[in-house]
Amino acid sequence: VNWGSSTQALSYVSALDNALELTTVEDHVKNFRPQCIVLTGEPMTRPALLDISHAFTKNSGLCICCEVFVGPRKLCVKEMNSGMAKKQAWLIKNKIKAFYAAVAADCFRDGVRSLLQASGLGRMKPNTLVIGYKRNWKKAPLTEIENYVGIIHDAFDFEIGVVIVRISQGFDISQVLQVQDELEKLEQERLALEATLKDNECEEGSRGIRGLFKKAGKLNITKPTRKKDGSINTIQSMHVGEFNQKLVEASAQFKKKQGKGTIDVWWLFDDGGLTLLIPYILTLRKKWKDCKLRIYVGGKINRIEEEKIAMASLLSKFRIKFADIHIIGDINVKPNKESWKVFEEMIEPYRLHESCKDLTTAEKLKRETPWKITDAELEAVKEKSCRQVRLNELLQEHSRAANLLVLSLPVARKGSISDLLYMAWLEILTKNLPPVLLVRGNHKNVLTFYS
Amino acid sequence: VNWGSSTQALSYVSALDNALELTTVEDHVKNFRPQCIVLTGEPMTRPALLDISHAFTKNSGLCICCEVFVGPRKLCVKEMNSGMAKKQAWLIKNKIKAFYAAVAADCFRDGVRSLLQASGLGRMKPNTLVIGYKRNWKKAPLTEIENYVGIIHDAFDFEIGVVIVRISQGFDISQVLQVQDELEKLEQERLALEATLKDNECEEGSRGIRGLFKKAGKLNITKPTRKKDGSINTIQSMHVGEFNQKLVEASAQFKKKQGKGTIDVWWLFDDGGLTLLIPYILTLRKKWKDCKLRIYVGGKINRIEEEKIAMASLLSKFRIKFADIHIIGDINVKPNKESWKVFEEMIEPYRLHESCKDLTTAEKLKRETPWKITDAELEAVKEKSCRQVRLNELLQEHSRAANLLVLSLPVARKGSISDLLYMAWLEILTKNLPPVLLVRGNHKNVLTFYS
Repeated sequence: VNWGSSTQALSYVSALDNALELTTVEDHVKNFRPQCIVLTGEPMTRPALLDISHAFTKNSGLCICCEVFVGPRKLCVKEMNSGMAKKQAWLIKNKIKAFYAAVAADCFRDGVRSLLQASGLGRMKPNTLVIGYKRNWKKAPLTEIENYVGIIHDAFDFEIGVVIVRISQGFDISQVLQVQDELEKLEQERLALEATLKDNECEEGSRGIRGLFKKAGKLNITKPTRKKDGSINTIQSMHVGEFNQKLVEASAQFKKKQGKGTIDVWWLFDDGGLTLLIPYILTLRKKWKDCKLRIYVGGKINRIEEEKIAMASLLSKFRIKFADIHIIGDINVKPNKESWKVFEEMIEPYRLHESCKDLTTAEKLKRETPWKITDAELEAVKEKSCRQVRLNELLQEHSRAANLLVLSLPVARKGSISDLLYMAWLEILTKNLPPVLLVRGNHKNVLTFYS
Repeated sequence: VNWGSSTQALSYVSALDNALELTTVEDHVKNFRPQCIVLTGEPMTRPALLDISHAFTKNSGLCICCEVFVGPRKLCVKEMNSGMAKKQAWLIKNKIKAFYAAVAADCFRDGVRSLLQASGLGRMKPNTLVIGYKRNWKKAPLTEIENYVGIIHDAFDFEIGVVIVRISQGFDISQVLQVQDELEKLEQERLALEATLKDNECEEGSRGIRGLFKKAGKLNITKPTRKKDGSINTIQSMHVGEFNQKLVEASAQFKKKQGKGTIDVWWLFDDGGLTLLIPYILTLRKKWKDCKLRIYVGGKINRIEEEKIAMASLLSKFRIKFADIHIIGDINVKPNKESWKVFEEMIEPYRLHESCKDLTTAEKLKRETPWKITDAELEAVKEKSCRQVRLNELLQEHSRAANLLVLSLPVARKGSISDLLYMAWLEILTKNLPPVLLVRGNHKNVLTFYS
């Protein structure tokens, strides 16, 4: 049996041995690393999501780009396996230290569940889920929302942290990629055509005919280019062109060096410290090193200074360099009428309004549209809803100009609120802001000040 | 932030980089390696299954010991995560180059599906599923059978090969381990007791009292030992004692060097070559190097010699050293009455016998017991059933004395036969034989003679 080149065999065995050796290292907060499942789908389709994840995993953790194929199994498996090598190669080619992993499943959530639980090898296994913010939640089919929120709950159940990334333009550029592919195809056709024409010219002796060929050549050469503009025009006529331009720029925003500025961390719950660790790792990167950390925490209005000092000493124990600490004393005050109104209008279409109906109709509606937000529920979590609205006010006030916002992800017990209300929370919380990471660790400590 | 010792950090990064580097190696039959998901449950509970898998994965492939926790998720995850480190440590301690992986799932099959699809990292991902033979299939609840057969189908769907291992005594020694634990506890108690007594003696000056302590000591020392025998007796009185003895011996059989003898390979379908590759790898191991390969293949009775020559040249192209090739010309003849009778008696309890009933009752029965074997089905696959029975006859005739049997796993299209009939096939095929590996590759070639 031919075992392939000895170098290959060697690199395999050493990779395996290294991985095995790792398993002997005792688990300890000291050697926690962000090991991320990033739901990029096809890796090339969400560059910004991949770039930001790579920024805090590269060399200090693990990054697995994951894709879930939903549909008839045999077909999915075929498609999945045929693309494997190509997609992994793309990552390598683009110098992204990440693995590509894919599963075929009956539904998206099942697939992600498999990846969360089973992917990785020994110590190199995920402890953090990174997903893009679902910006189309208002229009998306309900099952999609259920899957999306369900995945977040699954992650917590498996003791895996969650990072939701939002950039205003969204991540998915597959549309653009399609157009680019088409253009490339055309370009290649054109070149092929030119080539053949040249050949013919060389072979061809007689002037007259050569002239003829030249004409033909020009014709053939110009036709595709016209087509080229054409295909772009059609896009623009679809009012996608300018949008695509913005999208492409946005999708590259984490590739370039981040200028002087701040990463604002709003650490509102003790989640073990992931919310603090990720921005800290970012500041160690070349691209982000000109960004200063500003830490925002809640506190009692009447003891701002004490809390500030306490926090400062904690951070210095963690050896986290920070530019500034702000203790926010007025998180729990009511949001102002306008912003509350915005929230109410946002959820209006999903409300059941059962209280202003007689019991039987109310019950009937509940049965028919169980996904709707009931008045009872809304009342029960009113305080939390207010908090999200209020927080956005504060974020607008303090962090509007930050390069990046890192913010504790609000969570609600499973089943305690409807998926749509939860999405509304995330929406209002992160509305009109710079790029946001909503972070929630798995409550295991990831920071330590023992040495 | 404290990143743990620099050596740890280094080993992590190098493990990761190695794993990443591997992904750049292009996939090729030349660098196929058996990368196995082994369903050991808790690694220590099925030593023989783990040992044999380790024998053909160690240094030449990947071995992942897998456990599925079925039940309420939160509980499962808790139990799972708490045991993780301990079980991996056990593998390392016992010099087994294997990873421990576990998932929590609603049912066993779901869990295995996750592991088959998602486990591993880059190139180090499973391509072969190794499971023990389900010897209790006759008594086991139907859902267990469904899961078991279902898992085999899932593996093929995911283009993953399957190896089913059968040893007459079975693999699971958890019972025995429990008893051992108890005994150890008792032993420790005893030692603790002795120790305290000794201390007392030292402190204690006066003869008389020391004497008294001595007595007490004896008493206390003897009591546990009596208990010790006691707990063994109880086991024996449960008629498990001798059985356990056999079990323990059987479970260690692949740990010791295999004497002079043969590994008989019955290669009955071209499955890509896994059926040939695994025994070949075994012969490269110290433990197995005194075992010669004997290859058995089907052929036309009237051209035995030609087929023999053809096979020989193929094997030599693969550079597989073999002691002997047998072309079996009479696989497809009818089995003799006795052995067929054995098979019929085996399936009798699961048969529906609808044909000897009127249509309505037949339909009714079908609805009530859909898992039963219908006459129609039995007739449809009669030939295949005969084949299994006949093969066992041949195996008895040629390979009864082999140290190990490697045999193509019979497969039937999903839904084409009932799970119970399939189990009956496996049962009759591997009945009263030395340890058997039923192997079926994923039909991708794993052997090559290009250089």
